[in-house]
Amino acid sequence: MKRNVYLDMISLEEAQNRLEDLYGTRRTQTETLLSCEAAGRVLAEPIFARTSSPGYHAAAMDGIAVKASATYGASEGSPLALTSGQDAFPVNTGHRLPEGCDAVIMIEAVNPITEGVFEIDTPAYPFQYVRKMGEDMVATELLFSTEHTLTPYCIGALITAGVHEVCVYKRPSVLIIPTGSELVTLEGPNATQPEPGRIFESNSHMLAAMVESHGGRAIKHPIIRDDLDAISACVKKAAEKEAVDAILLIGGSSAGSEDYARRVAEACGNLLFHGITIMPGKPVLAAQVNETPLFGMPGYPVSAIVAFEQCVAPLIASLAGRQLTQRPLAHVTLSRNITSRLGLEEFMRVKLGRVGENLIATPIAGGSGTLTSITEADGIIRVPPHVEGLATSDPVRCELLRPASLLDRTLVAVGSHDNTLDLIADAIVRKSGKTRLISSHVGSMGGIMALKRGVSHLAGIHLLDETDGSYNQSYVERYLPGKKLTLINLVMRQQGLIVAKGNPLGLSGIEDLTKKGVRFINRQGGSGTRILLDYKLKELGIEGKSIDGYTRDEYTHMSVAVAVLSGTADAGLGIYAAAKALDLDFIPVVTEQYDLLMESDILETPMGNELMATLDDKGFKMRVEALGGYSTEKTGTIIRRFVP
Amino acid sequence: MKRNVYLDMISLEEAQNRLEDLYGTRRTQTETLLSCEAAGRVLAEPIFARTSSPGYHAAAMDGIAVKASATYGASEGSPLALTSGQDAFPVNTGHRLPEGCDAVIMIEAVNPITEGVFEIDTPAYPFQYVRKMGEDMVATELLFSTEHTLTPYCIGALITAGVHEVCVYKRPSVLIIPTGSELVTLEGPNATQPEPGRIFESNSHMLAAMVESHGGRAIKHPIIRDDLDAISACVKKAAEKEAVDAILLIGGSSAGSEDYARRVAEACGNLLFHGITIMPGKPVLAAQVNETPLFGMPGYPVSAIVAFEQCVAPLIASLAGRQLTQRPLAHVTLSRNITSRLGLEEFMRVKLGRVGENLIATPIAGGSGTLTSITEADGIIRVPPHVEGLATSDPVRCELLRPASLLDRTLVAVGSHDNTLDLIADAIVRKSGKTRLISSHVGSMGGIMALKRGVSHLAGIHLLDETDGSYNQSYVERYLPGKKLTLINLVMRQQGLIVAKGNPLGLSGIEDLTKKGVRFINRQGGSGTRILLDYKLKELGIEGKSIDGYTRDEYTHMSVAVAVLSGTADAGLGIYAAAKALDLDFIPVVTEQYDLLMESDILETPMGNELMATLDDKGFKMRVEALGGYSTEKTGTIIRRFVP
Repeated sequence: MKRNVYLDMISLEEAQNRLEDLYGTRRTQTETLLSCEAAGRVLAEPIFARTSSPGYHAAAMDGIAVKASATYGASEGSPLALTSGQDAFPVNTGHRLPEGCDAVIMIEAVNPITEGVFEIDTPAYPFQYVRKMGEDMVATELLFSTEHTLTPYCIGALITAGVHEVCVYKRPSVLIIPTGSELVTLEGPNATQPEPGRIFESNSHMLAAMVESHGGRAIKHPIIRDDLDAISACVKKAAEKEAVDAILLIGGSSAGSEDYARRVAEACGNLLFHGITIMPGKPVLAAQVNETPLFGMPGYPVSAIVAFEQCVAPLIASLAGRQLTQRPLAHVTLSRNITSRLGLEEFMRVKLGRVGENLIATPIAGGSGTLTSITEADGIIRVPPHVEGLATSDPVRCELLRPASLLDRTLVAVGSHDNTLDLIADAIVRKSGKTRLISSHVGSMGGIMALKRGVSHLAGIHLLDETDGSYNQSYVERYLPGKKLTLINLVMRQQGLIVAKGNPLGLSGIEDLTKKGVRFINRQGGSGTRILLDYKLKELGIEGKSIDGYTRDEYTHMSVAVAVLSGTADAGLGIYAAAKALDLDFIPVVTEQYDLLMESDILETPMGNELMATLDDKGFKMRVEALGGYSTEKTGTIIRRFVP
Repeated sequence: MKRNVYLDMISLEEAQNRLEDLYGTRRTQTETLLSCEAAGRVLAEPIFARTSSPGYHAAAMDGIAVKASATYGASEGSPLALTSGQDAFPVNTGHRLPEGCDAVIMIEAVNPITEGVFEIDTPAYPFQYVRKMGEDMVATELLFSTEHTLTPYCIGALITAGVHEVCVYKRPSVLIIPTGSELVTLEGPNATQPEPGRIFESNSHMLAAMVESHGGRAIKHPIIRDDLDAISACVKKAAEKEAVDAILLIGGSSAGSEDYARRVAEACGNLLFHGITIMPGKPVLAAQVNETPLFGMPGYPVSAIVAFEQCVAPLIASLAGRQLTQRPLAHVTLSRNITSRLGLEEFMRVKLGRVGENLIATPIAGGSGTLTSITEADGIIRVPPHVEGLATSDPVRCELLRPASLLDRTLVAVGSHDNTLDLIADAIVRKSGKTRLISSHVGSMGGIMALKRGVSHLAGIHLLDETDGSYNQSYVERYLPGKKLTLINLVMRQQGLIVAKGNPLGLSGIEDLTKKGVRFINRQGGSGTRILLDYKLKELGIEGKSIDGYTRDEYTHMSVAVAVLSGTADAGLGIYAAAKALDLDFIPVVTEQYDLLMESDILETPMGNELMATLDDKGFKMRVEALGGYSTEKTGTIIRRFVP
């Protein structure tokens, strides 16, 4: 197995400095655009006004234009009469002052006497209500410096100044080359799952959109298979013959046997660095090929994103003569302690919601291959390389990926997982257009604890009281005494065994889980489903250790169903909807009560109202019923208000 | 003079609420786009994953795939040998696990023995270094809710999930109709100043760029002259026959005799409001024509900008299902007290620069017709309607128009005006790409006082000491004792009388200013030029009051030159460059020393270095000399370091 090695990995700062040193003062070629089409572009020349604005003394008010000196002496006791066309000239705002006039009397101060005759009782002073010639711009004066970014406002100024076209830097062109024999192109709307081992090539489209959103121009190359010569030839040609400002080679930037990026870089040009101490994004590579910067981008999408934003985006901005747009920062509180790897700067994706005074950050699970860890993120926390983690008590700064106003209208749900929470999230945003619901899945007991710590608004819970078969209320009394809370029913739902299509092992209930050859997949401790299982096992007199897989656990119903679908387990306890979604079989075990436990104060807010309206919505209930395994008879019913 | 009246003006909040009530839940029509072209758009439907990702159990590391249970027992003392193709399968990151394998051993932990035989000394556990099928997305699960804004990241997720196209809201289409008989179209690069009374139509292009930058689609209508019927017909046709989402009618929204916007609104539809208590932007109008929102936009460009951003931008965002992007806010310190009008909320344009710990905000002069007051602005301070002004001691929040990083690399110059400051501003940004210089013109003494208050980095000064004919040093000693400052020569420059082309009154020097019929234009008190004039008058034994216009003043050389060009004055004292720029005649009076007085600490920073390098630059000196009336022999020379 042949193997490349990383050069000594370098820090992000060092990598950025190397790029800055090489390319910091380089700019793209220039082009001439019509002024009205140049918004967002950066000037490659200083712009001087060609005409003055105003180009003449202009009325700054609607009224009559006069010669100021002719009005001296007018007073309340002895008003002065003026005749239209003779010593008074009606003008509107913006009109040129008639010859001989040097002041405007506003219409409210003019008293019409007869047709064409006005009276005034206050004199005008010279240049009263007059916009003087050149007040805004004077011909030949500098309007904008070189490297000025043209805003829409500037477009107005350019045309006012008689500047018809401007010389600007071209948008940096970036050639994007996806490589990898496993890649297939997604073609047409009826695509099915690609054959095993193959994946849809998505990185080039994502990186192209990122290039464009940073003001560059993306050129997408078709997929190249893992073939050193083909990739090298493509890179060489682009660097030599095509006028591109940068090349992104996606995939093969790591150190595996088919990771060609480094060999391509060394064959075609000079390696600048290979490997940065960041996570995700570590295996990024930079080289210079015939003066053109070449980047080897990691194939894992979140790695590619971080590598792009840290290394490529600053270059695109700089080539265009622009400042890199920084994301706004906010102070946040972590909802739980997190660990991180010493020696690597981690870009941790989090969900954010405002609970009381605090922005609560909940880390999102998933590695650099988990794209949803960043599409669902509201923010990114950079964990420095010299720490092993962050605690809930640490002051933490977070880059915001969404407008702060959105975070203020966010219901933060931390608790048990149920598919209907996704439906609420969709329905509530549809209904209100503003409020959203984010949910983190830590099980029912985790949800109770999050409410206790004040880092959430509500929790989905389905906690069976083994003493009387009731749900939830006794847990709230025990764990959350003295809090103002409201318990609302979300659904009644069927829990049962999720098994492979056709139930090949012929399982009929919990009691069959101890059979030889049956591999079980469990839910995590503290989840309602786990408690339910343990309750049922106790009823049946079965011990957990007699079940193969009792100690392997997953955090959601869908993960359990996926384990069954993928054949790593034969059965798991979960909800019908999860089995149905993946076309698996389902053996009903029990109908349980799934409630929302909510801060009573939040119920009084617009967010709370919208949540209750959503629960009450017929369409929403129909969509829940359509999932199967749910009853919505009690949905939205307030079960109990807990008052201190 | 026929006259419309405003309805009772309403507050901005009330206006925004009326629009929100009417249009808050309205959305544009939908369209289907390729996923890879949908970045920045808002989903009109929820998106469910069509395929799972990974679609199979995949290697999460480069190494060998194994069946975990077959590796149990391997230890350092008793390593286990594995054979390639039999119980070990080389895989790269992302590869599908071969049938029967459920774990990956990373390459670093594998010891190659002979061709095709490896040894391991630690067992693998099930799913070690394996990305499980569906770990990122599971087919049929909700990927994005309705109204989700698609980022470039989302493009990657959509294609990974096998979603080829998406249904999104159309970009809101906005028809922009410029009206006004005074408007002409700027055509071609060789345009000259339009004939007196005419101006280039620029608002439609500016508003179009603003519409596009807010995610809308602008449709520009040709100019319509001030003709009620023509304008009404155009609006009616657009509202009835063309599927536009909003109409902007520019001009005529005020209350003058040719202000047709209100009459158009009332003739075609229902008026929603006319007049908002904001400044600029007061005369904005909103109406509903056949369900389509119509806005009467003020003709003054800064009014149009404020009206657009406060009333139209929120509508465009809302129609597209998007949150309006808010500008970042910062706390700032005013460099001087400012007044504002009671009853109106003022949008005050300011320049910003960081001096020490503080962001210093300097208000920019100019009314709603002064476009450069906003193109040059770094921020906007909203002065509430219930105050008459703000003091330097007030806590003030400012909306930032530029990235904060730019403000950190800004030299704040407050002092005398000289055209070479514009050249420095252009040269320094050209040279460094980062540092910029902003200058406010308050005269030499104003510059000294700004340094004293710590609200600037440097001041341009040319203060003549009447006792010995020296420049600047004695003023620094007297007014700024105990400060670390450095005095650097910028230029030696000619001051003289600026007179009309051909010198029609035959003036030959200061002594002719007392002649009958000579109208003078002065500079403000505290300016070096004013001090110079007073010195010369004293020498000649002339009293100021014997000069017609001695008490009329302007703040810059160019304003003085404009006063002469426009015929409101016959002569003013100023620099040669100002006369030359406007092709006026110039009668030399004296050569004076114009210096930069600078905080010594700033000289040690990169900004300071770049300023000194610019002053030393040959190209810069040549451009200064080319202006005429300047000598650069001593430019950049340190004249004196003042130490406490």
